[in-house]
Amino acid sequence: MTRVLREVRRFAAARPGPGVVAVSGGADSVALLRALHACGSPLFVAHVNHRLRGADSDADEAFVRALCAALGVACRVKSVDVAALAAGDNLESTARRVRYAFFAEVAAEAGAAWIATAHTADDQAETVLHRLIRGTGLQGLRGIASWRAGGVSPPSSHKPSPDNAPPSPPSSDEGSGSLGGLMPPARRGIVRPLLAVTRADVLAHLAALNQPHREDASNADTRFTRNRIRHELLPLLKTFNPDVVSALAHLAEHAAEAHEVITTAATELLTNAERPRAGATIVLDAGTLTAAPRAVVRATLRVLWDREDWPVANMTFDAWDRAVEIAAHNASACDFPGGVGVRRVGRVVQLTRRV
Amino acid sequence: MTRVLREVRRFAAARPGPGVVAVSGGADSVALLRALHACGSPLFVAHVNHRLRGADSDADEAFVRALCAALGVACRVKSVDVAALAAGDNLESTARRVRYAFFAEVAAEAGAAWIATAHTADDQAETVLHRLIRGTGLQGLRGIASWRAGGVSPPSSHKPSPDNAPPSPPSSDEGSGSLGGLMPPARRGIVRPLLAVTRADVLAHLAALNQPHREDASNADTRFTRNRIRHELLPLLKTFNPDVVSALAHLAEHAAEAHEVITTAATELLTNAERPRAGATIVLDAGTLTAAPRAVVRATLRVLWDREDWPVANMTFDAWDRAVEIAAHNASACDFPGGVGVRRVGRVVQLTRRV
Repeated sequence: MTRVLREVRRFAAARPGPGVVAVSGGADSVALLRALHACGSPLFVAHVNHRLRGADSDADEAFVRALCAALGVACRVKSVDVAALAAGDNLESTARRVRYAFFAEVAAEAGAAWIATAHTADDQAETVLHRLIRGTGLQGLRGIASWRAGGVSPPSSHKPSPDNAPPSPPSSDEGSGSLGGLMPPARRGIVRPLLAVTRADVLAHLAALNQPHREDASNADTRFTRNRIRHELLPLLKTFNPDVVSALAHLAEHAAEAHEVITTAATELLTNAERPRAGATIVLDAGTLTAAPRAVVRATLRVLWDREDWPVANMTFDAWDRAVEIAAHNASACDFPGGVGVRRVGRVVQLTRRV
Repeated sequence: MTRVLREVRRFAAARPGPGVVAVSGGADSVALLRALHACGSPLFVAHVNHRLRGADSDADEAFVRALCAALGVACRVKSVDVAALAAGDNLESTARRVRYAFFAEVAAEAGAAWIATAHTADDQAETVLHRLIRGTGLQGLRGIASWRAGGVSPPSSHKPSPDNAPPSPPSSDEGSGSLGGLMPPARRGIVRPLLAVTRADVLAHLAALNQPHREDASNADTRFTRNRIRHELLPLLKTFNPDVVSALAHLAEHAAEAHEVITTAATELLTNAERPRAGATIVLDAGTLTAAPRAVVRATLRVLWDREDWPVANMTFDAWDRAVEIAAHNASACDFPGGVGVRRVGRVVQLTRRV
């Protein structure tokens, strides 16, 4: 049995479906479709023709339609001129929005319990590397979530519960574009059964079935950073350790689990530390923060920033550290990006956004 | 004021000394010595001549002696034929043992509160990269500790307390040698004031003082992986982000803080879950483990393994995951490296080492 089939069987046993499979026609999604189909999961395929590569895009669509017909699987296709739709906005994020909206539409129509995308450990490694290079904490290190919370339960019992899962990427990722395609906006019931499987495993699975596939659009991708990670950095890392992709994927898993623990503790700390608001000013008890571990204080501020919808895009490592110093260790007041002022006044910490 | 001086001032204000500075004569340690000296900390320099590079080693020693004389700082030198002493054992770990034992000796003689080593953010980045490539969890991602618990208090109030600090590296690092020089065995009161400072900052500091230094032995190092990380991988990463060293150093800091939180929770979970031993068999309440987050269960097993002194060297990601599955989710029994058997029996988990 191939690695792909083993992983997908495990998934299918826990999540019988019906489900929607997002299929581009590339190796990863074709392997996922074939494996889910082999497991007998009731399926609906969703394919989006972004019309970005002319005849090639149409050939991808025709390939997916033919494959579905051969397998006897329902196929829903949306064809949309994404370039026209984006009209100067970020093309990749527009395409992603269109794609996931269509998947959700098909899922609703099919009464599906989940939407499966074919992200692999290689995608995970690229995402993790991209964030490592750019700078990331635990939150970003989680990479692509193996499932995305929503109206459905997680794929297996030991995964974090939907209530605790904080699946959104650090906001500095929003619109960065370079690896954006790997991190869609939060949707209900997205699952990624191949996240522990490498691209080599995928190709082995297809070879075993003698199953052709289309050249993945993202492989011909001209987005600079992602391509360099895939074609320069990962090959170099593999000369150190041929299994580096799995190593990075494992680390992302550990980071996700650790982040869950810290975020749970942070939510609790915020509840304990928060005092009644003074007008628009948020008031926290300083002593409660000072007594807590630094990682939890940092996460608490993050939870607060998110809850208040304060901008985090320009909150650097140093900015968060500075905020922790004020909140927990009485450093002098500071204004943060987005006009959020933090200051210590006697025994409390006051946070206000200047509007 | 240079970055080096700023960081060292902050350190010196919190930890007045007297202190021991480990000085090889290389750029990092010379910069550290000059900065600590400028801050007026009462100092003792410790230098080990490993006699591994003939006249070069002796010239290093002479350089350090002359520098100390010029600064009016006491200088203690130990000259030892490390190659003869190692006698076939790992040379690097023997040298490290000799070095840190001598530092501790000088510290005792001087009544020093701390022993400062000159590891920089570059050393940190190399260590983190090495572990990322080889495969690591949160514990290894912490890299080099900015201080090492012992009979002294941590360098600043917001650092984790010595009681909670788990400073020993993952045991898979022990004796691996390739980056071993960066991770000495646990000692009392080791501090690393330059861990947030890059090598470029160090060179800028020396240039500002017009202070020469010896070529660092580790730069001429022939240890393969470390050299390739320094001379191939890091330069490539810097083409993505010139600040990648700081990004990795920050991440290590976050990992250390998160690891502390998880380890604290794990110690607590172990206390709650443990039942009286049945002979040599350790007995844990399964329900208590099942209710805990996966990251904490994994850390709890790690704490237990360490406490029992069971071998962890061959415990891979998958092995730990398997142990978690048995302990918390009733997977079938398994024997782990070192002969540790884990099995679920009714409502308890039994762990025994076959001897």
